[in-house]
Parts: sequence; structure tokens; C-alpha cells
Amino acid sequence: MKDVLVVGTGLIGTSVALALKAQGVGVYVRDSDPVSVKIASSLGAGSMEEPPKKVDLAVVAVPPALVADVLVRLQAEDVARHYTDVASVKARPQQDAIALACDNARYVGGHPMAGSERSGPLAARADLFDGCNWVLTPTSETDTDTLNAALQLVAACGAVPVLMEAAAHDRAVGLVSHAPHLVASLVASLLEPADERMVSLAGSGVRDLTRIAAADPGLWVDILDANALVVADLLEEMSEGLDDAVMGLRAMGATDDDKRSNGARIVEDLLRRGQAGRARIPAKHGTVPEQYETVTVMIGDQPGELARLFTDASSAGVNVEDVHLEHSAGRPTGRAQLSVTRDLREVLVTTLHNRGWRHH
Amino acid sequence: MKDVLVVGTGLIGTSVALALKAQGVGVYVRDSDPVSVKIASSLGAGSMEEPPKKVDLAVVAVPPALVADVLVRLQAEDVARHYTDVASVKARPQQDAIALACDNARYVGGHPMAGSERSGPLAARADLFDGCNWVLTPTSETDTDTLNAALQLVAACGAVPVLMEAAAHDRAVGLVSHAPHLVASLVASLLEPADERMVSLAGSGVRDLTRIAAADPGLWVDILDANALVVADLLEEMSEGLDDAVMGLRAMGATDDDKRSNGARIVEDLLRRGQAGRARIPAKHGTVPEQYETVTVMIGDQPGELARLFTDASSAGVNVEDVHLEHSAGRPTGRAQLSVTRDLREVLVTTLHNRGWRHH
Repeated sequence: MKDVLVVGTGLIGTSVALALKAQGVGVYVRDSDPVSVKIASSLGAGSMEEPPKKVDLAVVAVPPALVADVLVRLQAEDVARHYTDVASVKARPQQDAIALACDNARYVGGHPMAGSERSGPLAARADLFDGCNWVLTPTSETDTDTLNAALQLVAACGAVPVLMEAAAHDRAVGLVSHAPHLVASLVASLLEPADERMVSLAGSGVRDLTRIAAADPGLWVDILDANALVVADLLEEMSEGLDDAVMGLRAMGATDDDKRSNGARIVEDLLRRGQAGRARIPAKHGTVPEQYETVTVMIGDQPGELARLFTDASSAGVNVEDVHLEHSAGRPTGRAQLSVTRDLREVLVTTLHNRGWRHH
Repeated sequence: MKDVLVVGTGLIGTSVALALKAQGVGVYVRDSDPVSVKIASSLGAGSMEEPPKKVDLAVVAVPPALVADVLVRLQAEDVARHYTDVASVKARPQQDAIALACDNARYVGGHPMAGSERSGPLAARADLFDGCNWVLTPTSETDTDTLNAALQLVAACGAVPVLMEAAAHDRAVGLVSHAPHLVASLVASLLEPADERMVSLAGSGVRDLTRIAAADPGLWVDILDANALVVADLLEEMSEGLDDAVMGLRAMGATDDDKRSNGARIVEDLLRRGQAGRARIPAKHGTVPEQYETVTVMIGDQPGELARLFTDASSAGVNVEDVHLEHSAGRPTGRAQLSVTRDLREVLVTTLHNRGWRHH
């Protein structure tokens, strides 16, 4: 891939341009906003000149609703051999492109699954896509060379390509991101009017569950807007599950023994399906989750405690896969939960014990 | 407090006994299961003998449904001056105690908010309650001396006392623990039948949200059983919120502009309330959450990376308040998000930068 035109110099477009430039690709940038494109270009994202000849690939980095419009104009201009986009939903741009009679053999949809709380070219970074999943949604119409051009783009950005159908992609991001976000907001919203003492009992479970609810509501309305009907379907499914749970719990609270055990069965079944679903979430590296073991260590609240802990762990050659801090109420200590692979647990426990850490 | 009788030598009862013994209190232990009480006693939790005279306090450490039965028998025996329990729900034992005409002036309900995935006396630890919230539910009938005896127990166990009404306690644990648990299970259960490639897109948001869904379903059925109707009410409230969200999202997906913006308003309102509720969750030490700033650092996957990172942070005198690891898909690197107080952010960034860490 020698040269690429990036259309749209927001966070994602400018980051793509910076990543390509860092790989020695010739990059041209365009944006309907002259200020934005100037900033991007001055950050080293590429040239504001018109490409002197047809480029290898055009990357359409505009909001989902505008992708097909921009695509049809670029193809009329015949500016590039291949075309892709980076919008966060995929079914709608694809349908629009068919409706507008774009050259769909030369266009493949894409969605780099990276982002930032910030937006605009100033927030862009060449390493934004490092190690992220980048979904591509080829159809039976897509030319193999076009798919290969998009795959080269993904590789140049340091991302991991995942091929999916557009509708499956939209449902997937609804499932693993959009619907969970609204659920986290719902759980957190119940805490808003609650009594102070009630909220003070909140522990790490609900804190972790609601972490994503802290995000900017305005930004999330935009994200949800592009996938609204898919997310509505998913929440409706969840609402049915919630109604089952309510029914089960009410039966558990009944006096009749048969009713009670029947209710308990309904609730336990839900908990089991949850446990099974949870076990499928990739723990790291996008691979099947390994079974990790947890070692819990008491830590003080002074600077250096975590440094000392991790130094002691690594002195034993133990790689900590994940760490989870739980702070105690009302006192300057807490617990650190270290996740390690099963075979290293014993080594870690012995090492930490010998170095005077309190664990259990 | 000179001497205490602990009735019930499961995880909580034995841990209470061990904590009291460590404080020099004379402890007697009882259990209907002769094996359990023998184990507890041999672990140093207390004497299996009958107390020679009235003890200061009896701690009833049996399942919620049995608390009042045990209480009425102990009071008939006149074994202690004051009585408390440690069951995880509080309204039901209190109502039962009234129904059985217990001496309710001499009894105050209690709930130490600590636990473990394990159960039984062998899992007990003297420090189980260290820094945990311990709810006490006195009524207008409760004798001040009885409340003081319970407060001494809480202090001896190293916990932080929180006074609440029984019904408020049950709603609070429903709100911050039981209902969120079922919601996490619900979200996770949607992933169970999902396509492998869809699940592979799951990131840290849904991973954190569903963490508690990994817990033992059998144990959680028991926990939910004792508070079933309260949790059912809370989930019903949430179900209404979910239906509103579905309605809002369907409107957002409509063609009519008025409908669309009306739908967006409904969804944004939910997200805002969630953000406000989330902001109320205590970050640590049971205090009002401070505003932390996040510094994101790229890390390798070798042993010692985290040790090096925390050593560098602490060398600058920076106390990391929280840490969050995000592993990249398909490659041996990841991001560590370090939370620090606002005033220390600059110091941390400069220090890490000078020591060669890549951050953004």
C-alpha cells in the first residue's frame, strides 16, 4: 500500500492517518471543516493537497449517517482503487451504499474497536489501534483485492482483523458494549435517589458493575443513536429475563414450599446461565479465558506498597495477569487480589508469605 | 466485654470468635453440629464448655430463618446479658423475634458485611471483618447497654459500625449487592448462546460489569432467598427503567425528527441519572469519592513490568489509588490505567515519561 486518502480528520481519521504515516505510507487528508484538516495536517497526519493520481485506498472517517454519501462522491471522483470506512455501526452504511448504487465491490465496511473519551484531531494518536480488534464486513460482492487493501490498513495500524457480517457486528457491539452500558446506567440510576447510608454500603461489586456509567452521556447518546433498534431488541430480551427473575424471586418469598423451590430453580437457572456466559468473555489477548487463581493480599495505603508487592511477585518470576484493589471502609488498608495462572499460585503464595505479606 | 458466647460455628461465627479471642475476650462456642464446633474450638476459637455464669454477650450466628428460634431458647436459658446476630438480612429475624415474644430490649440485629467464597469454620479468619462495614439495627425498644455491647463487638472485630433500620438495611443490600448481582448474571447470560466471534469483541467494560456473575450460583440462591421480595421490588423498578430505555431507543430509530429527539432525550436522561448515581459510590475508605485522574501507560506482558511501573510511581511519592489493566487482543502488551488524586497527576506523568514509559 503506497498511498491512502483519509476523508474526515476527527479522532479516528487522524489516528489512522498518523499510524499510516508512521509506516511510511503516503497520506492525504480531507475534511469539510478547514480548521480540523489543518490541525491534522500540522500534526503530521498527511498532506492537504489533492492526490495527483488515484490512491490505493480511501478511508471514509465520517459519522455513520454520512458514510454512503461521501463514498458515492469519492467513487464518482474515482479517487481510489479501494474504499473502506471506520464507522461504529456497519449495517446502515452498507444499506445506504446499496441504495445509492455505490460500487460495492470496491467498498468494504470497517470498525476499529478503539476510542477515547476525547474527540477531534488533537486527541489523535498513531498507536490508538495498537492491539485492538478491527472488524471488517465484506459481502459476497466484495472484491478480494479490496478486502486485502483493508487488511493491509488494519495491519499497518497494528490492529487485529475480525471478519463479520454487518448485522452480526451491530448485534455484537450491542451485546458487549451498548446494551451493557445502558444496564450499568440503570443500576447506577437507582443509587441516585438512595439514602446516603445505603449508598455507603456499596462495595467493589457494584462499583465495578457501574464503572462505565461514569462516561459522558452526550457522547453515548450519539453512539446509541447509530445502533438504537438493535440495542432496543437486546434490552427487550433482557427485560424478559428480568421479569422471569422477578417472578422467581416472588415465588421464593411465598409460604408454599413447592412454589418456593420452583422459584429457586428459576433464579438458580438464571445465575447458572450468567456464570456460563461470563466464562466465555476473553480474559486477555482475545484468547479463550484461562482459569486464573486469585491470591488476596492485605496492603497498606502508603505510597510504595503496590510497588513492593509487585516487585516481590516478579522476583519469583510470577506474571500477575490481573489485579483488583478493594479498599477497606474507614481505614487506611485494603486488599489486592492478584490473578495468576494456576501453576504459579503456589510459588506466589510462598514467596509473598516469606516476605511478610498477609494473605488469605 | 469479658466473655461472649458464639452460637453457630460457620465461617462468620468462627471468625467472630477468633477475632474476640485475639482481643483477649473469653469465648465459648456452640453448634448443633458437633464436628463443626470441635473444629472451631481446635482452631482456637473458644471453649466448648458451658459458660459457668451469664456471659456479657451472645452472638447468634445461624441462618436468617433460625435466628429468632435460637434467640428465644438462649433467652429462656438466660445465658447472656445482651444478644445480637450476624444474619445477612435483618427484617425477618426482627419480625420473628417479635412474633416469638423474645426480650427485644436485650437483642439488637447485626450484619457484618464481609464474606468469602468459602464457608465453614476452616475458612474462618480473625481478620475477616477488618475495615468492613457492620450494620446494627436497633429499634426504639433496644436497651442502650445492649447496643453498646454490640458496638464493642464490632470494634473488637476491627469493623466500622453503621446504624440503620432493619428494612432500610435489607433494601440497601438489595440495592448495592443483590439486585446488581442478578443484573450482572442477566447481561452475562445473553453472551452464553452468542456466536464465538461476537463474544471475542468483549472488552473491559462488559468484563468488569459481569465479574460478580462468576460467583457460585448455589450460594447466591441462598443469599437471594433471604431477601427475595425486596430484590423482586428493586428488579421491578429496574424493569420499568429498562422499558423506558427500549421506548426511547425505538423512538431514536424512527424516521420522524420530533420522535427521534424525544427518544434521545429519554435515553440521555437515563444516562445522566446513571452518571449521578455512579458518582455517589464511595471510592475507598467509605468516604465521599474524590475526583481521581487517570494516567494510561502501555505495558509489556513480561513478569516485572507492573513491579517496575509501581516502583517508578512510588519513587515519585505518588500513591496509586486504583489500577485497571486492559489487555490488548492478540498481542503481548496492554494498558494500565492508574488512578491518582488530581494534584499528583502531573508528577506521575512527568516521572513515568522520564523513565521511558509510553503513556497517553
